[in-house]
Amino acid sequence: MGRITVRRPVVRISLGQTPTTRADSLAAEEPLEIRVGGRSLAVTMRTPGNDVELAAGFLVSEAVIGRGDEFLGAIHCGGPGTGGVENTYNVLDVTLAPGVAPPAPEVARNFFTTSSCGLCGKASIDAVETVSRYDVAADEVVLDAEMLATFPDALRAQQAVFAKTGGLHAAALFDARTGELLVLREDVGRHNAVDKVIGWAVLNDRLPLTGTVLQVSGRASFELVQKAVMAGIPILTAVSAPSSLAAELAAASGLTLVGFLRPPSMNVYARADRIRLPAPVREDILSGTRADRT
Amino acid sequence: MGRITVRRPVVRISLGQTPTTRADSLAAEEPLEIRVGGRSLAVTMRTPGNDVELAAGFLVSEAVIGRGDEFLGAIHCGGPGTGGVENTYNVLDVTLAPGVAPPAPEVARNFFTTSSCGLCGKASIDAVETVSRYDVAADEVVLDAEMLATFPDALRAQQAVFAKTGGLHAAALFDARTGELLVLREDVGRHNAVDKVIGWAVLNDRLPLTGTVLQVSGRASFELVQKAVMAGIPILTAVSAPSSLAAELAAASGLTLVGFLRPPSMNVYARADRIRLPAPVREDILSGTRADRT
Repeated sequence: MGRITVRRPVVRISLGQTPTTRADSLAAEEPLEIRVGGRSLAVTMRTPGNDVELAAGFLVSEAVIGRGDEFLGAIHCGGPGTGGVENTYNVLDVTLAPGVAPPAPEVARNFFTTSSCGLCGKASIDAVETVSRYDVAADEVVLDAEMLATFPDALRAQQAVFAKTGGLHAAALFDARTGELLVLREDVGRHNAVDKVIGWAVLNDRLPLTGTVLQVSGRASFELVQKAVMAGIPILTAVSAPSSLAAELAAASGLTLVGFLRPPSMNVYARADRIRLPAPVREDILSGTRADRT
Repeated sequence: MGRITVRRPVVRISLGQTPTTRADSLAAEEPLEIRVGGRSLAVTMRTPGNDVELAAGFLVSEAVIGRGDEFLGAIHCGGPGTGGVENTYNVLDVTLAPGVAPPAPEVARNFFTTSSCGLCGKASIDAVETVSRYDVAADEVVLDAEMLATFPDALRAQQAVFAKTGGLHAAALFDARTGELLVLREDVGRHNAVDKVIGWAVLNDRLPLTGTVLQVSGRASFELVQKAVMAGIPILTAVSAPSSLAAELAAASGLTLVGFLRPPSMNVYARADRIRLPAPVREDILSGTRADRT
C-alpha cells in the first residue's frame, strides 16, 4: 500500500538568512483507477489509503449504490505491465451485488449534465433531485450553534497528516445530537476526502446519514453539496466560501449549508432553521432561507 | 453570459449576538461542456467568463494544441432544449485547424494513465514527459528571491472577485525578468484558473511560456505541474503545500517548484538553482535539488 506522506528534500529560503536543505513531509498523491466489474469507470488523483471507501463513496455520489449490501467487494488489481501484471495498488476493481445496474461510463462521469433542458445550473440541480434516494429536506434534526462552532477545532485536532504536510483536505462526519466525531478522512483531493467519509458510512450500513453534519476543511462547491444530498446528510459546514450553485442546490434540496464557519461566527446559506441559537432570536430571521429557491 | 458573482441571502450568526439576514456575493459556478468539432470532450464546473481561454488552455494541457493557429475558433452553442435549442452559454464548441488531430475522448480525459507499465506515479510522470512539446529543464531563466516574494501580494491585489466572495482560486503569470504581472484569472476550480491563463497565452501566440512564473493561490498538485510543463512554464509557485507527485514531476521535468510562498520565506522542492539570493550563499545548497529524481 502507498504511504500517505512522502519525504522529499526541500531548500528552505528565508530572506536575509542562509538557505537550508532538509527533508520535508509531503502529502502523498497517486492515481487511482476505479473499475466496476473490470470496466474502467474513473481515474482520480488521490492520497493512498481507504481506497475501498473512496470507491464506495464515489459510487454513492454517482447514484450507483445506496446501501452496503449493493457493494459486494473490491480488490486491488495489477495494471497491464510490460513484463506481465504488476500490482501498483492503484487500480481497484469493484464487484456490485447481483441485480445492481453498473454505471454507464458517460453518465457516471457527469450525471448532472444529462438533463434534457440544456446544460445549466438549474439542470444540474434537477438532476441531483431526480436521482437522489433520500429526502434531506425532511430531516428534522436541530443542533445548537455553539456545538457547530466546536467542529472546526475538532476537525483540525484530528488532522494528523495535515499537521505534518499542510497539504491535505479533510472531511469529517459529526453526530448532530451528541457532537461526536464519527469519522474523519484526509486526501489531496477535496472530493476524495468526502467520498471516503461517505464510503465508510455506506460500507457500515449507515446510509442515509440522517442527523449528521459533514464538515469540510475548505470551500463548498456544487459537487460537495451533491455528495451530501446523495448520502442523505442534512447539514454541510465549510470553513470557507460556498459557490453560487452550492447554495442554490442546498436551498433546492433542503440541506443546511454553512460557510465561513469561523467561530464565533458563521454564515448560513440555506435552511438556517436547523440551527438553534443560545439567545432568544426572531423566528422570522431564521426562516428567511427556508423556502428559498431563487 | 453568466455573471462571475451571484447575490444570495445569508443568515449571519455570531454567537452572543442577534443574527442578521443580508445579501451576500458568492462566486458563480456553472457547468461548461467543452466540445471539439461538435463532439463532447469534457464537462467542468467553472466560473463563467473567459470560456474560450478555458477551452484553449484545457486543450494545451491535454496535448491537443500547442500553438494559437491550431485553434481556429470557438462558439457558444445551445443545448438540446425541450422546446427547441436554447443558448445557456454553457456549451462551447471548438474548431481545430485542419490537420490538427482531435483528441480521443478517453485519452484526453486522463492522458497520464495510458502508460503501458501500469497505473502509478512514475507512469504518470513518464506520460507528461512523452507528450510535452517543450523542455522546461532547458529554460535558463534566473530570478531574485525578493522579486518572487512580491508575487503573492500582487496576486491578491488583483483578485477582484475573491475580495468580494472569498471563494475563488486564482492563477497569474509573471514575467520572471521584470516581475510584471502578465495575466490573472480567477475560477471556483483551481485547474480552470490555470487553464484560463494558459489559454490566454496560447491564443496570444505566447507558447512556450519561457521566462515566466505561474503563481497559484492554493496548493500545487500533480495536475497543476503538468499544466505548467505542457505550456513551457519553467517556474510554478504556490501559496500552500505541494503534493508528493507534484514535487516528483517538477524534479523530473526540470521545473522550479516553490511551495509555502509566504514572504519572507518559501520552500523550493525542485530546481532551486533558478532562484537568486540576496546574500552570498553556498552554491552546493542551491544545487541540492537540481538533479533530484528520487
